[in-house]
Amino acid sequence: MTERRRKFYAWGFEDQSATPEEIRLVESTWAEQFGIDRFDVIDPPKLDEIELQPPRIRNIPTSLAPLCRQDKYERALHSYGRSFLDGARMFKRDFAHAPDVVAYPRNEADLVALLDWCDEIRAAVIPFGGGSSVVGGVNPEIKGDYTGVVTIDMWYLNEILEVDRESRSARVQAGIYGPDLERKLKEHGLTLRFFPQSFEMSTLGGWIATRAAGHFASGATYIDDYVESIRMLTPAGPWESRRLPASGAGPSPDRFVMGTEGSTGIITESWIRLLERPRYKVGATVTFPDFHSGVAAVRAISQSGLDPTNCRLVDALEAQLTKSYDGGKPILVLGFESPRYPVDSEQQLALEICRDHGGEVLDQSEGSGANNTVSGLWRNAFIRGPYYREHMIARGICRETFETAVPWSGFRQLHETVIDTVSRAIVRVTGRPGTVTCRFTHIYPNGPAPYFTFHCLPDRDRMYEQCLEIKHAAADAVDSCGGTITHHHAVGRLHMPWYQRQRPDLFGLAFAASKRTVDTNGIMNPGVIVPEKP
Amino acid sequence: MTERRRKFYAWGFEDQSATPEEIRLVESTWAEQFGIDRFDVIDPPKLDEIELQPPRIRNIPTSLAPLCRQDKYERALHSYGRSFLDGARMFKRDFAHAPDVVAYPRNEADLVALLDWCDEIRAAVIPFGGGSSVVGGVNPEIKGDYTGVVTIDMWYLNEILEVDRESRSARVQAGIYGPDLERKLKEHGLTLRFFPQSFEMSTLGGWIATRAAGHFASGATYIDDYVESIRMLTPAGPWESRRLPASGAGPSPDRFVMGTEGSTGIITESWIRLLERPRYKVGATVTFPDFHSGVAAVRAISQSGLDPTNCRLVDALEAQLTKSYDGGKPILVLGFESPRYPVDSEQQLALEICRDHGGEVLDQSEGSGANNTVSGLWRNAFIRGPYYREHMIARGICRETFETAVPWSGFRQLHETVIDTVSRAIVRVTGRPGTVTCRFTHIYPNGPAPYFTFHCLPDRDRMYEQCLEIKHAAADAVDSCGGTITHHHAVGRLHMPWYQRQRPDLFGLAFAASKRTVDTNGIMNPGVIVPEKP
Repeated sequence: MTERRRKFYAWGFEDQSATPEEIRLVESTWAEQFGIDRFDVIDPPKLDEIELQPPRIRNIPTSLAPLCRQDKYERALHSYGRSFLDGARMFKRDFAHAPDVVAYPRNEADLVALLDWCDEIRAAVIPFGGGSSVVGGVNPEIKGDYTGVVTIDMWYLNEILEVDRESRSARVQAGIYGPDLERKLKEHGLTLRFFPQSFEMSTLGGWIATRAAGHFASGATYIDDYVESIRMLTPAGPWESRRLPASGAGPSPDRFVMGTEGSTGIITESWIRLLERPRYKVGATVTFPDFHSGVAAVRAISQSGLDPTNCRLVDALEAQLTKSYDGGKPILVLGFESPRYPVDSEQQLALEICRDHGGEVLDQSEGSGANNTVSGLWRNAFIRGPYYREHMIARGICRETFETAVPWSGFRQLHETVIDTVSRAIVRVTGRPGTVTCRFTHIYPNGPAPYFTFHCLPDRDRMYEQCLEIKHAAADAVDSCGGTITHHHAVGRLHMPWYQRQRPDLFGLAFAASKRTVDTNGIMNPGVIVPEKP
Repeated sequence: MTERRRKFYAWGFEDQSATPEEIRLVESTWAEQFGIDRFDVIDPPKLDEIELQPPRIRNIPTSLAPLCRQDKYERALHSYGRSFLDGARMFKRDFAHAPDVVAYPRNEADLVALLDWCDEIRAAVIPFGGGSSVVGGVNPEIKGDYTGVVTIDMWYLNEILEVDRESRSARVQAGIYGPDLERKLKEHGLTLRFFPQSFEMSTLGGWIATRAAGHFASGATYIDDYVESIRMLTPAGPWESRRLPASGAGPSPDRFVMGTEGSTGIITESWIRLLERPRYKVGATVTFPDFHSGVAAVRAISQSGLDPTNCRLVDALEAQLTKSYDGGKPILVLGFESPRYPVDSEQQLALEICRDHGGEVLDQSEGSGANNTVSGLWRNAFIRGPYYREHMIARGICRETFETAVPWSGFRQLHETVIDTVSRAIVRVTGRPGTVTCRFTHIYPNGPAPYFTFHCLPDRDRMYEQCLEIKHAAADAVDSCGGTITHHHAVGRLHMPWYQRQRPDLFGLAFAASKRTVDTNGIMNPGVIVPEKP
């Protein structure tokens, strides 16, 4: 149905892949790290190796049949998100939880008809944007008493419907992918400049539903701040907020939608606030004698009011493993940009703060930054990372990530606890050491958003189970140190137990009551945000 | 009970007042404006002129009796907020809706006991911070079937409980007044720099409950952005969010509290993000050939990324009536500040934008700005304004305000419609012309927050009714042009009909369901945000 086909088992489209050079680099890095000679490589799954349960939903109404697919490719493609945990199961040819139907609405009327039908037959509905969830947000693993699962893929709702140049805003359909959005905005000289790592394979609606965080390392980091209004379809009908630059009229209706992860409805369109394309850009890489000197510098920058676009502190091991910097010291990827005025003085002020904390400037650049700067190398590794995943899984290498945010005063303890807990969990679970690294993705005046990556070599047959056990240890550690269970990866099904610990109990009850008013039969993404009934 | 007594019938404390010079200036301005020789002056109400209904609640439990007051001063003080509409009724000696009990909890245990008691006897509870509401948010005008009204005044919950210097945050009790908060933060070299016009007579909890907007004209304008976590007591128990710099874990629980205006519980404390005191400040006043040239300049500034601290465009008539500038042209009060680095270049860039739109710089200043600049005169009129109100009411002058926000593309039509509608409503209702003026209080890249003020001379006996009729015409005009019913004055009881039109219908149902989970008996500020049952 989709002209350019997405890989059903891994990141990206079928015409995209890591290059042989990239794969060799991954192999050599991790062979050296784990002290092994070579990796056994498992082939990626092919459709004819996969067995799916017959779909539980059979009688699709004639009027909806043209929108619905039940072939193996579509059902397999929509069985998982794109985490390592998902990949490990896909490489095991485990597609036990495939959706029964994959529906592609062409417009809102289609979507209304689909929701009505699902509500009538009590099928669970999984809203699907780019399918890049790393937290089980789109996985049809639903325990409750439903007649089946219908995944609704928003692929065709991908137009810019209206541009208001004067107010620098646009009304956009929720199913649009990042690159498509930017390409269409560019025709108007505008940009959203919202570049999460999933940019290529995620949608505006997905960003809003999961409260994604994007390009800007400080200031307006979340998509939340770029949303002017939202239109959502719920089983009870449409929910649309008035388009406003700001409003103090009661609790924000949009904030009742953002972060609900499809548990109350499907976002169909949104007015978004846009930016002008940056004209001035500067970048620099700074190294520090040790991680906590870097942390102190970044804290000072976060409280300076300078608001860098980029301010990503990467610890020494992560800098080395990503082939960005081999100096055995942490690096800070720093950058400023503006559409209107030069930002050199901001950069110089930030570099002064770095020097005050023992920072040494490795390079500086103008414009987008050459690829041969340390920051350029890091950025490239960041963008290409998702394409490596399938090749690491094929080689039995577990690479997982988790992220949080915590006040500055709690960071040192959280960092120590997490690194220690996860390192030990890796040894305990897999029998040999792995790596645990940390960087900051976003910074706030009152605390950082640290992002952790771990690598290990689990048992080939138990990759999913072992990785999951380590993830659970990590989540417990983050939670016990007062961090949030997620800064921007969302809750999904994976984070639900910790999310329920974190949120106020009464909020959980209040939100569940809200959900019931718009989704009486509880069909919307069951088990996400609101737990399935026991 | 309160050492320094608040005026029961007007803005401020009993030891504060407008000066005789200020009163003379008000008189001469408006005598000239309305073309009359002199004003008949009505004396402010005295307690012994007022008759209150006997309290409906009589049997206060012994354990709570020390917290509760039923004397005339306390009941009168808590009968109204501080709008013109409130004042008009107070000067008419109309205190028909006095609360039955005014309770002063000393701590959270007191508050729990009070809420339990109110829930048990089904008394309506009105949370009371500084009582500065201009939208009937604290007025005990409740139609439903309650045994009475208990107003809970948070006066004694006014401590800073904890300061986290490293994370630049503090845990503060909700009943603290603005000046007290800043005085106590100053001891730590910190500031919230949150200065709504109500600053002197409003509280942290009130700001959060009503989503107040403060000092900063652009960027982080709302208190929302300074809230790290909230603790609220509801009839069902405490609701407390985890203290975090940012989180993407589900919809924000704090955003479910901010803007609820006491309809779900009483905020008792909050972790707030603080700022350093500004070290660099610059200001300027610019005038423009006409209002819409100024609008165009401000729009360009709002989209430049410069983020001025002050950017208040004041139309020619408002500049003249506030005695700020008599040149028959609009003024722009512009300012930048920073704790860390000079902001002159930002100011110069903004002034360049102004000149591109025909702006002429009237004055520039460093530091806080001398009082003899046009901006200084305007600021003084702004701060002193609330103190004039009682003297205007005494003279039969109606002065009311309303405010909104709208995309830039909708502003011109909204502005024309509102000025025209309200001007004509004044003539129709009062039989003679008044004034309607406009300024911008806050600006966003996608639209301004215009603030309108009208003055007229209603019938002395029907001041409340006539002013209300004009307000309704204004609200209809704002609503019909797509503006929000309020940018920062909140909803209260006054704005409910337009709020219900503005918000998504399903959101209204969803929020009402949320409320029921924490306030089963519907005792919390009935009729605000969630309509009373018909």
